[in-house]
Amino acid sequence: MSMDALFNSVKTHGPVCVGLDTQEGFLPAYLQEKDWSLGEKLFEFNRKIVDATADNAGCYKVQVACYEALGLDGMTAYAKTLQYVRSKGKLVIADIKRGDISSTAKQYARGHFTGDFEADFITVNGYMGEDAVSPYYDYLKAGKGMFLLVKTSNPSSKDFQDLPLEGGELLYQQVAKKVSQWGEAFVGESGFSNIGAVVGLTYPAEFQIIKSLMPHTFFLIPGYGAQGGTGKDIAQVFHDGICGVVNSSRGLITAHKGKTEGEDFDQCVNQAVITMKEDILQWL
Amino acid sequence: MSMDALFNSVKTHGPVCVGLDTQEGFLPAYLQEKDWSLGEKLFEFNRKIVDATADNAGCYKVQVACYEALGLDGMTAYAKTLQYVRSKGKLVIADIKRGDISSTAKQYARGHFTGDFEADFITVNGYMGEDAVSPYYDYLKAGKGMFLLVKTSNPSSKDFQDLPLEGGELLYQQVAKKVSQWGEAFVGESGFSNIGAVVGLTYPAEFQIIKSLMPHTFFLIPGYGAQGGTGKDIAQVFHDGICGVVNSSRGLITAHKGKTEGEDFDQCVNQAVITMKEDILQWL
Repeated sequence: MSMDALFNSVKTHGPVCVGLDTQEGFLPAYLQEKDWSLGEKLFEFNRKIVDATADNAGCYKVQVACYEALGLDGMTAYAKTLQYVRSKGKLVIADIKRGDISSTAKQYARGHFTGDFEADFITVNGYMGEDAVSPYYDYLKAGKGMFLLVKTSNPSSKDFQDLPLEGGELLYQQVAKKVSQWGEAFVGESGFSNIGAVVGLTYPAEFQIIKSLMPHTFFLIPGYGAQGGTGKDIAQVFHDGICGVVNSSRGLITAHKGKTEGEDFDQCVNQAVITMKEDILQWL
Repeated sequence: MSMDALFNSVKTHGPVCVGLDTQEGFLPAYLQEKDWSLGEKLFEFNRKIVDATADNAGCYKVQVACYEALGLDGMTAYAKTLQYVRSKGKLVIADIKRGDISSTAKQYARGHFTGDFEADFITVNGYMGEDAVSPYYDYLKAGKGMFLLVKTSNPSSKDFQDLPLEGGELLYQQVAKKVSQWGEAFVGESGFSNIGAVVGLTYPAEFQIIKSLMPHTFFLIPGYGAQGGTGKDIAQVFHDGICGVVNSSRGLITAHKGKTEGEDFDQCVNQAVITMKEDILQWL
C-alpha cells in the first residue's frame, strides 16, 4: 500500500520532501531567457531538480497553486511534472488541499488519482467532515494515499484550529482523532495508514500531543527552514522512529540564488537537499 | 464593487445560481455522439445553457472538480466556460474551495482572478485562518468577491462544524463571526461585503442564527432541490430582503433527461430555472 511505499522510500533516501512550489522568480537566468512558454520553463526547472535530487529525496510535493496561477500553460507544466516524477520511480504528493463532498470529491479523486494529473498522494481539507474523505476510500484501497490537514504551520492556524472545545480539547485534537479513526481501515505493513496528516513543525509541543492521538499516522510536515523548524525539532517528532516526511520548498529550490544563474543550478539544489537531510539524520 | 454587482443581478434576474457541475452523463445524446473531445462537448453543453438561461439566472457557478477530473482537456473547457459566461456580461462563481496560505494563496488569487481561469467570485475554505483569506484582499478591493465556507449542506458537516466550543457556541458560529469581521472592510453600496459565505439550506434554523451573526453578508446557498431545500425554506432566509443566491446544479442541468436528447435540451434547462425562480419568488 502507498504509505508503505513512502515509508520505504524514506528509509532508503531520507525524509526530505522536495517542494516544487515553482515560481518564475526562482528560475536561473539561463532558463528565464529561453524563448519558451513560462510553463515549459517551470517544467524544465522541475525536471532538472528531480534528476539531480532523486537519490536524496524521500518524495516530491508539487504545489498546484503555482501552476494554476499560470492558467492552461501552468497546468500543462503541472501534469508534465507529476508524470516525470512518477516516470523516475519516485513518489509525488499533489498539494491540492481540496475539500469537497460526495460526487464532487469523486471528481477530484478521478482528477488527481488518474489521468493527466495522477499523483500518488493528495492533500485534503476535511472541514466538511467525512463526506469530504470517504469518496477517496476506493482509491486508498487501491494504493493511493492522502494527507488530511490537522494542524498547519501558519500563524493564523490558531483562528480555528486552536479553539477550545467543550470539555477542554482543542479543535485540532478532535480533528486528529477523527482522521486517525478514518485511517484505521487503511493501515499497511509499515504500521502506517494510507490516510496521513499534515502537521506543521512550528509547534513542537503540540506535535507530541497530536502524535499520541494518531498512532498509525504518517505525517507530512511543513515548517522546516523558512518557517523556523530545525532538525532538532524533527528529532523530537522522530524520537521513536521516522514517522513522516519533512517538506521544504523555497529553502531548497532557490538554493542556487546568489551562486549561479546557469545550468548547474540543480547541483546547488541537490546540495541543499543533502544538507537538510543531514541536519535531520544527525539527530536520529 | 463585486457583491453589489451580484446583488443587482439578483434583483434583475432573480436569485437562481445555475451550477455548471457538468458531467459526461448529463449530456444529451446528440452531443455525446459528436466526434469531439469530452472537454469540447462539456463546453458546448455549458455554452448552450448559458445562452438559454441568461435572462433567468442571477449568476452561474462552475464546479472546477468536474473539469479537473478530465485533466487538461477538462481545464480547457473550464477556462472557456468562465470566459463565455463573462463575455455575455453575466457573473460567475468559481467553486474551487481553495484553502491555503500566504504566498500559496496569492498564487491561487492570481490563477482564479486573472488569466485563463478568471472568475468574478471564488469559494474558499478558511480552516487555516485569516492567512488563507487576507492574500485575496487586494483583489476584493479591485472588485472581486469570495464566499467562505461557514456551514455546508452535507450530513457530515456536523463532524467539525457543529462541535460545541467552550462557552457553548458551535464552531460554525465562531467561523461565521470571524468571516463577518474580515468582511467589514469590504462592504459596498448594497450593504453587502465582497466576502460572502456558503451556508447550506438544509438547516433552516441554523441559517437564522448565522444571518444574525453576519449582518453584511451575502450568501451562496447550496442545498435546494436534490438536497431537500425548498422555496419556502429560502423565503425564511429572505424574509427581510434577498441576501443571497440559491444554487442548484444537477436539478437544473439534467432537467432534459427523459424529455429530449436533442439540441432543444437547453429549453428544458431554462424551464427548470424558471420553475425554480418562481418557486422562490412566490414567497417574497
